[in-house]
Amino acid sequence: MTIAIRILGIDPGLRKTGWGVIASEGTRLSFIGCGCIESDDKLSLAERLKQLHEGIAGVIAAFEPDEAAVEETFINRDPQSALKLGQARGIALVVPAIAGLSVAEYAANLVKKTVVGVGHADKKQVQMMIRVLLPKAETKSADAADALAVAICHAQHRGIRTLTAQMRAAS
Amino acid sequence: MTIAIRILGIDPGLRKTGWGVIASEGTRLSFIGCGCIESDDKLSLAERLKQLHEGIAGVIAAFEPDEAAVEETFINRDPQSALKLGQARGIALVVPAIAGLSVAEYAANLVKKTVVGVGHADKKQVQMMIRVLLPKAETKSADAADALAVAICHAQHRGIRTLTAQMRAAS
Repeated sequence: MTIAIRILGIDPGLRKTGWGVIASEGTRLSFIGCGCIESDDKLSLAERLKQLHEGIAGVIAAFEPDEAAVEETFINRDPQSALKLGQARGIALVVPAIAGLSVAEYAANLVKKTVVGVGHADKKQVQMMIRVLLPKAETKSADAADALAVAICHAQHRGIRTLTAQMRAAS
Repeated sequence: MTIAIRILGIDPGLRKTGWGVIASEGTRLSFIGCGCIESDDKLSLAERLKQLHEGIAGVIAAFEPDEAAVEETFINRDPQSALKLGQARGIALVVPAIAGLSVAEYAANLVKKTVVGVGHADKKQVQMMIRVLLPKAETKSADAADALAVAICHAQHRGIRTLTAQMRAAS
């Protein structure tokens, strides 16, 4: 017996935060919605973070996901960039938690490996695989595609966890 | 003519976020409240950020500050630590913004210079000066003292800005 759940994937960034919602029922995935929340770089940092906060809260209110997953971005940059990204990432993690959703985190490489098959796939390959896995998805932006990829990654990994738990319960 | 305003100062950190509220009327400062919001390191990152979010929202609801100021922490560490701090900092910035407060940011060195007189003052010197400037303050933790220092720094600098604006208007 499988229950359909809705998963919200988030690819956080101060300038652009991608989001994607999918439904997962057993091994079947379907597209619900996706998009990109942009912050106005003429505003103060606090106001920009507020835009992201309100944007993510709006997506949760509109699509009512059951679980959330956020990309653990690969940090090979300077501490100043990491701090900046961290601020946006804090918002992406906290808003679903406040809404009562569980929030999983997946490394960018694992997301790519799960969706494309290789950990070092580029953004175009991710977008192409999203079109294959979710034919109805209209991914106008790479950020939205990345967010859908995080949601798919969570669907696969939670599926494995559920199966393992069922096998343990049966044995 | 001067109007008393309440300032919330925040010294953000994932494990401990210090907060302090002062009243500022002209050049007169008075202590309202201070404390430290701790997150439980046995919980997930999203749940810990939720604890900080709820803690700061609770302080704002209880003390009704008019403006907020957040310490811009000095980043001399690795990108991983910067990302971690950034996540807590995002929460410290966004919660007052959601509550409709303006949120100023001050570099740690400027805060120390304003309160102690030197930019490289240590935590003990900051705590000592807080006791001089706000005799009624009960700063049990260094984080709460740092948060009060940020609030004092904002009170001084907004005072200068207000004075400059008044002089411009009069000329």
